[in-house]
Amino acid sequence: MGEFDLIRRYFTRPSPGAVVGVGDDCAILQTAPGMQLAISTDMLVEGRHFFSDVDPHALGHKALAVNLSDLAACGARPLAFTLALALPSADGAWLRPFSAGLWELADAHGCELIGGDTTRGPLNLCITVFGEVPGDAAGPARTQALLRSGAQAGDDVYVSGTLGEAALGLQHLQGRLQLDALAAAACRARLERPTPRVALGLALRGIASACADVSDGLLGDLGHILERSAVGAQLDDAALLACCPWASSGMDAQHVRDCVLNGGDDYELVFTAAPEYAAAVTAAAHASGTPVRRIGRIDALPGLRVVDSAGQAMAASRQGFDHFAPADARPRSTAP
Amino acid sequence: MGEFDLIRRYFTRPSPGAVVGVGDDCAILQTAPGMQLAISTDMLVEGRHFFSDVDPHALGHKALAVNLSDLAACGARPLAFTLALALPSADGAWLRPFSAGLWELADAHGCELIGGDTTRGPLNLCITVFGEVPGDAAGPARTQALLRSGAQAGDDVYVSGTLGEAALGLQHLQGRLQLDALAAAACRARLERPTPRVALGLALRGIASACADVSDGLLGDLGHILERSAVGAQLDDAALLACCPWASSGMDAQHVRDCVLNGGDDYELVFTAAPEYAAAVTAAAHASGTPVRRIGRIDALPGLRVVDSAGQAMAASRQGFDHFAPADARPRSTAP
Repeated sequence: MGEFDLIRRYFTRPSPGAVVGVGDDCAILQTAPGMQLAISTDMLVEGRHFFSDVDPHALGHKALAVNLSDLAACGARPLAFTLALALPSADGAWLRPFSAGLWELADAHGCELIGGDTTRGPLNLCITVFGEVPGDAAGPARTQALLRSGAQAGDDVYVSGTLGEAALGLQHLQGRLQLDALAAAACRARLERPTPRVALGLALRGIASACADVSDGLLGDLGHILERSAVGAQLDDAALLACCPWASSGMDAQHVRDCVLNGGDDYELVFTAAPEYAAAVTAAAHASGTPVRRIGRIDALPGLRVVDSAGQAMAASRQGFDHFAPADARPRSTAP
Repeated sequence: MGEFDLIRRYFTRPSPGAVVGVGDDCAILQTAPGMQLAISTDMLVEGRHFFSDVDPHALGHKALAVNLSDLAACGARPLAFTLALALPSADGAWLRPFSAGLWELADAHGCELIGGDTTRGPLNLCITVFGEVPGDAAGPARTQALLRSGAQAGDDVYVSGTLGEAALGLQHLQGRLQLDALAAAACRARLERPTPRVALGLALRGIASACADVSDGLLGDLGHILERSAVGAQLDDAALLACCPWASSGMDAQHVRDCVLNGGDDYELVFTAAPEYAAAVTAAAHASGTPVRRIGRIDALPGLRVVDSAGQAMAASRQGFDHFAPADARPRSTAP
């Protein structure tokens, strides 16, 4: 199978939402007047972000999911994506399930594949995704997108869904932890088929003061919000533990806490909102069918503190995954 | 150096043209009312698209140049790009010249870096570039972009600049061909620092009936125009040879012809225009400071024919580079 056959067979479908889709030098998108295009790109490398023997259907899902999660974190409606793919060979037995996993998630979000690139090389997937957010009537340099920079002292801090399960699933796959069959299946599904919180992101427009997706671990990603908003935060330990459904199953609390704070690969949203929006946050969670939990509050004092039920400060260890930090200092949750 | 240090040090600059640039989950671009966004993505893999010991400054230039060339082929004005980068390590001695080469070309085209991703892995560069083209008053599903699909029987076929030099430069580097010092320097510069024909692409809006960039070889890329326009073409052998400035330097004519037709990595534009636009094509070439040469004409008979000065058909051998074709059938010009 040649390059153009490969594109035609697995990655070409009509894209009625685009002026020009796959097959020309560029794709052409037109957004409605007053709408802005949100753009994000994520690269997944074999042996770094996924195991060599990962189910290709799950990989197709995840490659797009991690990008949709960035749109969700901005409150953007998915429109389209491009796919650049380096492959050791053009293997239909791999490409068929990979493209099926990709299309299923793309179709679920009405997100059209409009172009890309394929080449031979070590397995590497690079997706760039495009979403639409309304512009702000206050001017062209303003946006209604959810940014990392809007958190203010006094805001509540929330997370969606569950945290730490992807890390537990990885540890189980690596043989570093023994989960029972139920927990293993649930945690592995979260690792391999994360759910981008697109509907919640859309519902939080005009409500959340800041938002990010939890890809590198809660401490790291909330840390980005704190840094860009020039604020600090205090998190409740009990609320953090409650973010992991397996905290009460006899697992060591410190281990669960570490997975919740530093696990990475959760693709949930962490966001802030003023206390007067608490009911609106609840309504957004209901409307989008996404569980949301308050885990603490923003304060003016820089840094991030975790407090126990008596209000005593606990140590908050690492600060999110860094691909280029020394390996011994910051182990990667998803690296083999 | 950590991931966020790496981004801050080498890949963060103000991007006043974007609503949101580097540092949030998504970049946000707003194009003017009636304008469309042209989007293209290209991935460059070590050992496949460039040698491991390539000058990083030249690589930074080329990684962006091959993407800008796609915008040029659509007649789009460069706006912004994202960069996804897999690196074996965060090495400042490599990143400094790489980012300098990238910024120099980006600045020359007013193209802002608005986001991306960095990860550890086998060296891989994936750029997605965004350009602006006017919408068409005839409706939102129309565009003023130059597409591959508009060539008509009777149109003239043109190419910009020179063809075959990048292939000669590669063969010289590989020791498969001995060029004199002058030719070697010129051909190597064309291989390592291609010139995206952005100004010509802009000048050809409303003049060219179809356009593509020559990245995989003239036969392959013109072949895309013929296929999508459902036409054929006849090319003049003498005009093809004249596209390579080294054709008259005693080199074997068949070898030069092969480099011109199949060389790849030229990043020139191949385009078609109705005969009544011949003067407008010349004016566009002058206005953009880009040499343009007529090499043949479009006809209704499918396929591509090369004719000699007596009008006799010659064999047109290969049809452009395919990354997944068997290696013995279609050698890659730029693979080691």
